[in-house]
Amino acid sequence: MKTEIMFKNIKAFVFDVDGVFTDGSVLALPDGDLLRTFNAKDCFAVRMAVDNGYPVAIVTGGCSQSIMHRAASLGVKARDLYQLSRDKRPDFLRFCSDYNLQPSEVVFVGDDIPDIPALREAGLAVCPSDAVTEVKEACNYISPFPGGRGCIRDIVEKVLKMQGKWHFDPTAPVSANYPDHITQLSKKTGRNV
Amino acid sequence: MKTEIMFKNIKAFVFDVDGVFTDGSVLALPDGDLLRTFNAKDCFAVRMAVDNGYPVAIVTGGCSQSIMHRAASLGVKARDLYQLSRDKRPDFLRFCSDYNLQPSEVVFVGDDIPDIPALREAGLAVCPSDAVTEVKEACNYISPFPGGRGCIRDIVEKVLKMQGKWHFDPTAPVSANYPDHITQLSKKTGRNV
Amino acid sequence: MKTEIMFKNIKAFVFDVDGVFTDGSVLALPDGDLLRTFNAKDCFAVRMAVDNGYPVAIVTGGCSQSIMHRAASLGVKARDLYQLSRDKRPDFLRFCSDYNLQPSEVVFVGDDIPDIPALREAGLAVCPSDAVTEVKEACNYISPFPGGRGCIRDIVEKVLKMQGKWHFDPTAPVSANYPDHITQLSKKTGRNV
Amino acid sequence: MKTEIMFKNIKAFVFDVDGVFTDGSVLALPDGDLLRTFNAKDCFAVRMAVDNGYPVAIVTGGCSQSIMHRAASLGVKARDLYQLSRDKRPDFLRFCSDYNLQPSEVVFVGDDIPDIPALREAGLAVCPSDAVTEVKEACNYISPFPGGRGCIRDIVEKVLKMQGKWHFDPTAPVSANYPDHITQLSKKTGRNV
Repeated sequence: MKTEIMFKNIKAFVFDVDGVFTDGSVLALPDGDLLRTFNAKDCFAVRMAVDNGYPVAIVTGGCSQSIMHRAASLGVKARDLYQLSRDKRPDFLRFCSDYNLQPSEVVFVGDDIPDIPALREAGLAVCPSDAVTEVKEACNYISPFPGGRGCIRDIVEKVLKMQGKWHFDPTAPVSANYPDHITQLSKKTGRNV
Repeated sequence: MKTEIMFKNIKAFVFDVDGVFTDGSVLALPDGDLLRTFNAKDCFAVRMAVDNGYPVAIVTGGCSQSIMHRAASLGVKARDLYQLSRDKRPDFLRFCSDYNLQPSEVVFVGDDIPDIPALREAGLAVCPSDAVTEVKEACNYISPFPGGRGCIRDIVEKVLKMQGKWHFDPTAPVSANYPDHITQLSKKTGRNV
Repeated sequence: MKTEIMFKNIKAFVFDVDGVFTDGSVLALPDGDLLRTFNAKDCFAVRMAVDNGYPVAIVTGGCSQSIMHRAASLGVKARDLYQLSRDKRPDFLRFCSDYNLQPSEVVFVGDDIPDIPALREAGLAVCPSDAVTEVKEACNYISPFPGGRGCIRDIVEKVLKMQGKWHFDPTAPVSANYPDHITQLSKKTGRNV
Repeated sequence: MKTEIMFKNIKAFVFDVDGVFTDGSVLALPDGDLLRTFNAKDCFAVRMAVDNGYPVAIVTGGCSQSIMHRAASLGVKARDLYQLSRDKRPDFLRFCSDYNLQPSEVVFVGDDIPDIPALREAGLAVCPSDAVTEVKEACNYISPFPGGRGCIRDIVEKVLKMQGKWHFDPTAPVSANYPDHITQLSKKTGRNV
């Protein structure tokens, strides 16, 4: 099947975090927690997918309150965030099952060895330009953009544009999914969300 | 109209944050807040604009105490900081109205889809070299510098030089707009601000 | 001796931190502590080495709780983390002695002047592509990858592949070595580690 | 005078922070403080200069506890750290006077407009490869390395090598200038500093 047809069939997105949402960098804190750097253009694309009704999951071997909050801000439902996922294949399949989707209708984006079993199940297997060799060999589409700098934007934009869904409505109400600290700051500054 | 003439007519600046003041990176904290990395050379240019009496606004979809403090340090007035701005066009127009300026006298710098409605109103629409395609098509001038690494410096320096205002006086008193922690540290270290 | 044969003889790994695990960047905090940015792909390789029974040591002139936690997360034993190591040669030799290894069976990866005495003792002396000139001259193998962006992955993957040990088992239980905050978050989120 | 002769005459170093010790990036915290990212190889060079008895000053328009601690860790004396220095020329001259040095015997490294008056006084005016045009025009030597990634290492190594001082003694005692948190961690880990 041609890659273009695959993009047209996609009904949901699953993303790894390190090396996909990020460039693989983790800032190590004194208490052992790891902080990650996300990309505004990639995040905008994920919100566009959520706003257009696409189920979105995040499946990561990492685990941090910071990932939980980031996922929530992007509109990813709590049950669709899989942290400490060492074996990503069953988590990917559970997500498909939760939404009554066939794996062939879902794109998985990963960059390293632990992503391969899930990539093999996905209808469209995608990786950033700087994925490891074994992952590139397991993918249908290698994005020209690296992890954390445009790979997610590239995939989401491609899918939504091919399906006629890439429209931003600046006057639509903001998602109710914003973390508390933003709502509070909003009250404090006197601006309406 | 030629771009050069546009630069000569500019009386005020409006900047997006993510992808313009920054390279689009946001560091996700455990409490959900997002931290941004600013650029010293870009910030110096904004202070030069403020010191020379140009009104400067910041219009961003983001929201964080860190942005508020950064804006204050640059001399941007609290009322000219628009956070949680999903629809940037009315915020841009309100800023123009607050200073009795025509939109045609104001430059807007943005890099992504939500900036386009405001860019269409601005007298000079500018984007960094790594803006998304749709934004580039909506701009009069594409800076050769990317967001967070020289784009703002490029625009401000161009405008101020064309208007004969690019002069730094090292003996001038520092703006009263410095955040408290600097004033306190100043007292502690025994140096005069 | 050919480099390939050296890789086949390696039984243990010793890594410097700044410029090897990282690109040399340190984020300076207000309390004087320094935070480092690690790389997920490099960290995955270190865990693969630990899971396959290779002793791994970290020898650094730096000192921070963040390094202690990171080392523990990677499965490096507390006694094999040498912080504040100004003279790295005796620390390298003590590690070899602790595991009844000859220095000729151990690889040392370093990037700057203080690493040279230890590099001279190691069976395989390795540096990232952006090491200083004096270090490059003291090394048997210069990785094509820079510090913090693939150098460690390159070395570990080479050694393990040549020794038939580069296999990831996604269903194996996660190491008991995870820091407390992860175990706690795991309980909180209701996921099993 | 040839640049080489200038390097041979240098008796002390003065460094700007943003764009020289760093790449110009500042991480904006919620309380308004700014954090900077330093480079291990550059920092090693500054310690080599201090250990060899060269007076070293830091002159910056910024102000943060993080800069104070970083300067102390590098062995820079508290009185030689000039924060909130808007007019850098008198601070440069005071440092020269404090050590009974002629400005012609001191190197100043800067990258932006506020550094120019001090650069004009210095015996050797140096800038990183990514300094602004006006600064490059005011300098005797433009380092091939950018700020935060080798510029300081380049200058210090050049001066010390030409003067036969670039020797690292791994067995020498560590400077007494280490911040408290390192001493405390040292006690906790049972290692001797």
